[in-house]
Amino acid sequence: MRRTSRDIRTANRYEVLRQVVAASPTSRQELAAATGLSLATVATLVGELLELGMITEVGFEDSAGGRPRGLVAVNAPGGALIGVDLAETYVRVELFDLALNVLARADEGVRPGENRPEQVVGRVATAVGSVVAQAGIEGARVLGVGVSMPGQVDRDTGVCAYAPNWDWHDVPLLDLLTEHIAYPLHLDNPLRACAVAELWFGAARGCGDAVVVNLGTGVGAGLVLGGGVHRGVSNSAGEWGHTTLVLDGRPCHCGNHGCVEAYTGAPGIMLTLRELSPASPLLHPGDQTATIDALARGVSAGDPVAVRVLEDTARCLGAGIADLVNLLNPEVVVLSSWVAAAFGEPLLDAVREAVARHALRRPLAATRIVLSPVPTDPVCLGAATFALEGALRPAGRRDGARGPRTGSRAPAPGR
Amino acid sequence: MRRTSRDIRTANRYEVLRQVVAASPTSRQELAAATGLSLATVATLVGELLELGMITEVGFEDSAGGRPRGLVAVNAPGGALIGVDLAETYVRVELFDLALNVLARADEGVRPGENRPEQVVGRVATAVGSVVAQAGIEGARVLGVGVSMPGQVDRDTGVCAYAPNWDWHDVPLLDLLTEHIAYPLHLDNPLRACAVAELWFGAARGCGDAVVVNLGTGVGAGLVLGGGVHRGVSNSAGEWGHTTLVLDGRPCHCGNHGCVEAYTGAPGIMLTLRELSPASPLLHPGDQTATIDALARGVSAGDPVAVRVLEDTARCLGAGIADLVNLLNPEVVVLSSWVAAAFGEPLLDAVREAVARHALRRPLAATRIVLSPVPTDPVCLGAATFALEGALRPAGRRDGARGPRTGSRAPAPGR
Ligand SMILES: [Zn+2]
Ligand SMILES: [Zn+2]
Repeated sequence: MRRTSRDIRTANRYEVLRQVVAASPTSRQELAAATGLSLATVATLVGELLELGMITEVGFEDSAGGRPRGLVAVNAPGGALIGVDLAETYVRVELFDLALNVLARADEGVRPGENRPEQVVGRVATAVGSVVAQAGIEGARVLGVGVSMPGQVDRDTGVCAYAPNWDWHDVPLLDLLTEHIAYPLHLDNPLRACAVAELWFGAARGCGDAVVVNLGTGVGAGLVLGGGVHRGVSNSAGEWGHTTLVLDGRPCHCGNHGCVEAYTGAPGIMLTLRELSPASPLLHPGDQTATIDALARGVSAGDPVAVRVLEDTARCLGAGIADLVNLLNPEVVVLSSWVAAAFGEPLLDAVREAVARHALRRPLAATRIVLSPVPTDPVCLGAATFALEGALRPAGRRDGARGPRTGSRAPAPGR
Repeated sequence: MRRTSRDIRTANRYEVLRQVVAASPTSRQELAAATGLSLATVATLVGELLELGMITEVGFEDSAGGRPRGLVAVNAPGGALIGVDLAETYVRVELFDLALNVLARADEGVRPGENRPEQVVGRVATAVGSVVAQAGIEGARVLGVGVSMPGQVDRDTGVCAYAPNWDWHDVPLLDLLTEHIAYPLHLDNPLRACAVAELWFGAARGCGDAVVVNLGTGVGAGLVLGGGVHRGVSNSAGEWGHTTLVLDGRPCHCGNHGCVEAYTGAPGIMLTLRELSPASPLLHPGDQTATIDALARGVSAGDPVAVRVLEDTARCLGAGIADLVNLLNPEVVVLSSWVAAAFGEPLLDAVREAVARHALRRPLAATRIVLSPVPTDPVCLGAATFALEGALRPAGRRDGARGPRTGSRAPAPGR
């Protein structure tokens, strides 16, 4: 887990490209000021990024009295990145240019009973083929495919150790995908995908320490610490959803009682509604999305049951987030994923209030709590960013994709 | 919060010196292998440490068939470091050589009613003078003084924002100390001190991610993440003691209810004993140390009340530590500070069992839970290590001690 010279070089490449993405066009001098790196280091890194085709020279700007400064910008058409979001009931695939604009999208449904690994992998391969065809690009320009798989994923071996949604155990997902997809593959989970999306393109940009709270069917926390994504020693950090919030409380599918997820995941919110008002018209049994949407509309309309459900949910979330604020002292806490997006501002306001009641004064004063500003599916965007990060890793590391700590594979880079 | 080239250089100096401390004498080749840094980088860093007088050349070893390799070792008498532990009822000061052997110690009592800042600072100055005199060294050889102050400490300004023990608010502690002590001063809190002690000399050595759980009057978690101490954006990370464990549970001095500390800090453990057996002879009202010692002896003797108190405490600790394991996925969790030392193995066994009941399988399998192996007061050792780290920071940073992000001051280095 020590940072080698190569790790540092990779982190610096990320930092400089992230800054170019944030403010194109820009000069080496501005990049040095924004990143804290020396001008000499920035010049070297810019040279490497130019050579990789990630950025491009776009002219000069006058500097007051001095020599004109060379400007660089993201080379948007220089390559394509593909992000795959494997959710419970669908497979979504998006194709991006290097400025992370969406060029094509494909959705494939996953019906109950059709979630065996071979079936899901087939859907992914179809959707990947579809977005490449839609975008009308040569396959050789695809730099990589990032795949977000909910559950416990071993990036090193590409094995999905456990996926509660589909009851997968020890599925060699990367091996299966490699049989159908000839681009470099990068596997991780949605917590990491959302964290990386916020770090590169969202509310965590430029932050040393940030927490991205994922509110969906499952609940977790993607952690950005020390300017990078925190994965933990076996890539399973962020399982905040199974923090005990209520000793001997509601049973959770993990086997424990009183977990955060049992109250704040979509099924937990549905249960709160059912307990409060068993015959509520807001309740769509078996349909999480419809129920959450109905609740969100109910809150806007001032429906007292919906408001009460929101308040109870925010109370639990706020207590749990306050604990994260006290423990990690982050600059920003981002509420992400579809449940957060559905409830929006009313949830944010109620969570802020609950956190303020529970957190200690000093870390509370240093933390902003915001909704994710990422306009597209953050999981697809983050997964595509895995592929971007993979393409930025110095050679020798990327080739060792079978080896430890990369979790990615480059069978036929075609570049 | 971004890592600059200078931060990285400093981190690499720490890494190399840490490795020399761990395995003196050693060669540049062994250091490169152990740290993952290139041989060229290690050679540069070794040169810098030799120049600083931190390490010394101690001869050569034969390498099979090749040229003999130069060996280096810690230059133990090359300087002195002082660690100050400001506890609720005492001030402890220890003086160390550069191999972190204790050369002298001084304890000063702090009686109730004698804890105004000026009084405490006077005690510290007396004790610091005493250890320098005892050790018989020239003041010029003292590289720095690290001070551990419980509470919320601003390293940048040297201000103690809040110290619950002594009810201090916004005390300019570093300014006050500077009036009496002419060595470079470094201020932080005991969570960070214990984490740094484990990272340099204890169970977290060589770990990327570790959690040091401090069990004393207060409870907190020192975090080692990505190979360094995690401080958070306003140096208040680690306030794990105020994590909600029991919604609407016992009141805590922070104003919340059901905090981890309210059950597992020494006063919380005393309350558990009183609730269980109000007239227990184990209870020494008003004396935490005596009560915890009596409980520890009771556990060894099989006293059912003492065993029950230990089990209840371990159950709360285990649930809380399982949440940390799930969230951070660390390599090791270290139980540190005087309550952990007093209970020892029986507490460790009971905590391990409770964590195994609560944590998820994958992060649990990756984590060891151990008692701190640091043989001396970890707070003094860690505080002295702040001074060591300060002395290792490249010049320009250390000079800017009044400036942001160093939290230390070098009024009269005398070197
Ligand atoms: Zn759970
Ligand atoms: Zn508390």
